Amino acid sequence: MRYKITLEYDGTPFVGWQEQQNQISVQSVVEKALKTYLRQETKVVASGRTDTGVHALGQVAHFDSPQKLNSRKAIYSLNALMRPYPVAIRKMQKVSDDFHARFDAQKRTYLYRIQNTAFPPVLNKNRVWHVNQKLDIKKMNQAAQMLIGKHDFSTFRAANCQAKSPIKTLDSLVVKRVGEEVQITVSAKSFLYHQVRNFAGALVKVGLNRWSLDDFEKAFRACDRTKGAETAPAQGLYFMKVEY
Amino acid sequence: MRYKITLEYDGTPFVGWQEQQNQISVQSVVEKALKTYLRQETKVVASGRTDTGVHALGQVAHFDSPQKLNSRKAIYSLNALMRPYPVAIRKMQKVSDDFHARFDAQKRTYLYRIQNTAFPPVLNKNRVWHVNQKLDIKKMNQAAQMLIGKHDFSTFRAANCQAKSPIKTLDSLVVKRVGEEVQITVSAKSFLYHQVRNFAGALVKVGLNRWSLDDFEKAFRACDRTKGAETAPAQGLYFMKVEY
Repeated sequence: MRYKITLEYDGTPFVGWQEQQNQISVQSVVEKALKTYLRQETKVVASGRTDTGVHALGQVAHFDSPQKLNSRKAIYSLNALMRPYPVAIRKMQKVSDDFHARFDAQKRTYLYRIQNTAFPPVLNKNRVWHVNQKLDIKKMNQAAQMLIGKHDFSTFRAANCQAKSPIKTLDSLVVKRVGEEVQITVSAKSFLYHQVRNFAGALVKVGLNRWSLDDFEKAFRACDRTKGAETAPAQGLYFMKVEY
Repeated sequence: MRYKITLEYDGTPFVGWQEQQNQISVQSVVEKALKTYLRQETKVVASGRTDTGVHALGQVAHFDSPQKLNSRKAIYSLNALMRPYPVAIRKMQKVSDDFHARFDAQKRTYLYRIQNTAFPPVLNKNRVWHVNQKLDIKKMNQAAQMLIGKHDFSTFRAANCQAKSPIKTLDSLVVKRVGEEVQITVSAKSFLYHQVRNFAGALVKVGLNRWSLDDFEKAFRACDRTKGAETAPAQGLYFMKVEY
């Protein structure tokens, strides 16, 4: 029987979603708990990988269980088994045997949080990118409009991205001020490697007036990563939601 | 010249506001930075102490400087000196020489955060109290109404409280649901030791239906700490604001 789980994690202590030699990954923590609970080796397939430092409030994954599970009890026991690692299963539901967390995903949503204050993050340490000069969010939203739709996003694509094509369709990108933060929310069916963090890096350059809208557009149209801005740090990024 | 500062801190790694033998306090971190910056021993007087684990977004304190300071530059340098401790000065302003952070405070506001979910806190670890059964906030607000005004709060007073009288005036207490959290916001000129955490413990007992409103009222009217509920944990408490 196949189960879909929704996961929250603090990316700080992990090497990322995926296992790597001798380092703790979110996947390994979840698989170890499932192995103990289900009493057999269990593979967990996520909707997408996340890098070290990147957080999740709504990562989705699936796994197969030899027996039917009571979701409420299974969540409770698995969360107890995963302690003290900062990972928790928020939801669990039975799905059809052909459900696939990665291939069936129709829309993924990420949030990028920037603390835009003169003083450094304290309670939000490792949870935000700190930008201490005031950001012009009106200008950032104007730049963001250029990105929406189907485009060649090579400027925002990490060198080691394994996607076959740099062409993706961006459904939405909204920049807003929420208290002391500037939050960037983006949705698309899928993203290139580092695409959201590269968007954030470039939009901040616009928001700080280091780039005009024209500079931003030229960088985007160049379809060349070397013309882009620096990649924004991992700790501001949150994998929020996957829709099927 | 006297300066008023507003501080944010993560209470987790500290023994609390006040210095204790061989343990790191918020006060000692701030005083050490000021000593380096002002090149003389400097005492910092806070509006009130906080216990280990208790956070602040708006603790207020004052200190005296031998020379006039540029607030923006001083905030920047002092925050750099306090790194890597999770303390930051959010604001600084020159005040009259007779300003006193503790004695002049007219109103103090605290927030108590409860994560009310079946799964444990992950990104909010050490930032909330986890209560996994659904809380009845309507009932909690009904109980809260009894506390507003001038009363003998002995039921909510820690055994080692040093206040002369258990009689205090509570200006407001509001319980509301904010997403997955239940948040309790309280304001008063001053509080007894552990008063807010003891309020939170008792209100949660009501919200879980372990106490009826009648039980709550009896405990309150008994003016006896032994009739009260358990003290809620420190990590859910935030010192938010002081008004002068």
